Amino acid sequence: MNREIAILGVGMTPGGEHWGKSIRELFVEAALAAIDDAGVDHIDSMYVGCMSGGLFNGQEHLSSLLADYLGQNPSAVTRVESACASGGLALRLGMIEILSGLNDIVLVGGVEKMTDVSTDGATYALSTAADQEYEGFYGVTFPGLYAMIAHSHMHQYGTTQKQLAEIAVKNHLHGSMNPFAQYRQKISVDDVLNSVMVADPLHILDCSPITDGASVAILCPVEMAKKISKKPVVKISGSGHATDTIALHSRDDLTEFKGVTQAAQQAFKMSGKKPGDINIAEVHDCFTIAEICVLEAMGFVERGQGGQAAESGFTALDGRLPVNTSGGLKSKGHPVGATGVSQAIEIVHQLRGEAGDRQVKNVRVGLTQNMGGSGGSSVAHIMEVI
Amino acid sequence: MNREIAILGVGMTPGGEHWGKSIRELFVEAALAAIDDAGVDHIDSMYVGCMSGGLFNGQEHLSSLLADYLGQNPSAVTRVESACASGGLALRLGMIEILSGLNDIVLVGGVEKMTDVSTDGATYALSTAADQEYEGFYGVTFPGLYAMIAHSHMHQYGTTQKQLAEIAVKNHLHGSMNPFAQYRQKISVDDVLNSVMVADPLHILDCSPITDGASVAILCPVEMAKKISKKPVVKISGSGHATDTIALHSRDDLTEFKGVTQAAQQAFKMSGKKPGDINIAEVHDCFTIAEICVLEAMGFVERGQGGQAAESGFTALDGRLPVNTSGGLKSKGHPVGATGVSQAIEIVHQLRGEAGDRQVKNVRVGLTQNMGGSGGSSVAHIMEVI
Repeated sequence: MNREIAILGVGMTPGGEHWGKSIRELFVEAALAAIDDAGVDHIDSMYVGCMSGGLFNGQEHLSSLLADYLGQNPSAVTRVESACASGGLALRLGMIEILSGLNDIVLVGGVEKMTDVSTDGATYALSTAADQEYEGFYGVTFPGLYAMIAHSHMHQYGTTQKQLAEIAVKNHLHGSMNPFAQYRQKISVDDVLNSVMVADPLHILDCSPITDGASVAILCPVEMAKKISKKPVVKISGSGHATDTIALHSRDDLTEFKGVTQAAQQAFKMSGKKPGDINIAEVHDCFTIAEICVLEAMGFVERGQGGQAAESGFTALDGRLPVNTSGGLKSKGHPVGATGVSQAIEIVHQLRGEAGDRQVKNVRVGLTQNMGGSGGSSVAHIMEVI
Repeated sequence: MNREIAILGVGMTPGGEHWGKSIRELFVEAALAAIDDAGVDHIDSMYVGCMSGGLFNGQEHLSSLLADYLGQNPSAVTRVESACASGGLALRLGMIEILSGLNDIVLVGGVEKMTDVSTDGATYALSTAADQEYEGFYGVTFPGLYAMIAHSHMHQYGTTQKQLAEIAVKNHLHGSMNPFAQYRQKISVDDVLNSVMVADPLHILDCSPITDGASVAILCPVEMAKKISKKPVVKISGSGHATDTIALHSRDDLTEFKGVTQAAQQAFKMSGKKPGDINIAEVHDCFTIAEICVLEAMGFVERGQGGQAAESGFTALDGRLPVNTSGGLKSKGHPVGATGVSQAIEIVHQLRGEAGDRQVKNVRVGLTQNMGGSGGSSVAHIMEVI
């Protein structure tokens, strides 16, 4: 890399059920907030992550739509999709474009408006991130796929439902301090264990919700950010992107997320950091079991030890590695295409010391981990305050 | 640009109704042909254009699916979408990734399997490239949008239905010499004018068909291609990407494709070429009127003169600027996500002298022009044989 990339500004909508706002309005709201935060008078190009404008909104071609409604014609705009990793991938592609030297100020964002369809419609749309011919066609949807992963982890390592519940409890506690979170109520382990069972062993409080929302970040070269920004400059020091088999049945071990490992290792290598150097992490807790598996896959805990991470306080706000201080997908919400960028926004707020009641002390280096499907695609980024 | 990018190998499926092949099989068939043509033993990453795996196939997350079925896990794979410009955009993003220095050998492709749904289903899926709230919701689909453009051009410039028909006749003549074309029959002006009216003034033979297909190209730095390739080396000397308003009603002039002009001007500037330097062009003739408007937008003919270009033989195989020697979208077929890459494949075959009966003589510089919706997004590339 002969250029270093900074995140100059960030903005997002709250997670929620935005009945009165369309997909274009959600995106523009987040984009204007990010542009305002960045203090730039123009942008050169845009990358937007969205999983399924087609199935959720009957609207593809978001590149043209969003450029138009943000008043950015004729700027080059690209929509990228990698299921729930679409946002993280937009962030990575914006970085690559600046590295290429083609452009300097690139807007990267994500958006999903999931409540325009029924809950069944949303469950179907989400299921298209799995293997349609070998998984979806036979009726298995994501709660079922992650339930199989959870059972396998419980069988192999003795992980308990209570340990799963501790993750939801922690993330709701963090989310209760985040004004942009969709569900800000604190919950208890009993609340989780007594909530309705969706797919054994996953209760509904083990699952991230259906969410409308948008998240945007403005990227530019570090040297430019140092001149423009009135806030601490955050740089992206590492990035990784990898795939794994789309179908669970093709994996050697259901609990092993090889794509997550690969993406994180690439990001660690690029940044020269190790897991022990990371002060804070936003990870993809689409289900509580996912937080366990990805912490193991990235080397933050030993294989099989992820179940104890929340229970022991390791991943708490005052723990050794605070995880999902934003509330995570579980509490902050999971507007699928926007999630990857919203993770970066939390890291930026923490690194700048703007995280309010949930601010972690002495944070210098943060990591984001975003994945699609049951880990079929993975993106990881490492960010540092200069 | 401190690196120059070459197209090392190409491969595609025929356009057609591939009832016996799924989206993953179509893509793998094209990818293996391209890898074989390139003579590489590995690829570093992939970009795949697809307009709507969700609406056509109930399958999003093609990044993971296609990496998996091509045996390329854990390679980084990105799906991009910009309606019918998805393929051209994949080509551009592959180029950007190599320019960034992150990777060297990048597979870029496109795929669409459009016959898994009914014709009504396909018409709906395609309509999601227009403005859903202000166009699609009111019942206008793409034949209707392009019919309005055609009427406007006829009104302003005296363009005739016969001139539109001449474009279809020319492109079918070219396609009759392309073994990968979907419709290889020659047609006459009377055939077009007597064919069923879809949206006045556009007859069905003014419209590109619904097509299944995939197209793939392998990119690498020019210096690497010179060492590896046993064939003439083709480099991408220019690239452009721009947006325009998504809805027709926001345009000053229905016949003016500003995004096409912008994208082409960027490509001309990067390559140091002018319209007069181009020997051959593959352009986005989704409807016959589109070929007229884009030739005008890129400066190949004066505004209002596009109607005469096919009639006078200017764009014929032996004309001053042969256009759509592959048969174009009209005859070769329009598997929407794959089209942009298939245009580049035709230019590569022509520049290498491999185009058989439709080979144009003394071809050194070619252009591709690919667009989404009614020109809401546009991509252009200029390619030269070294």
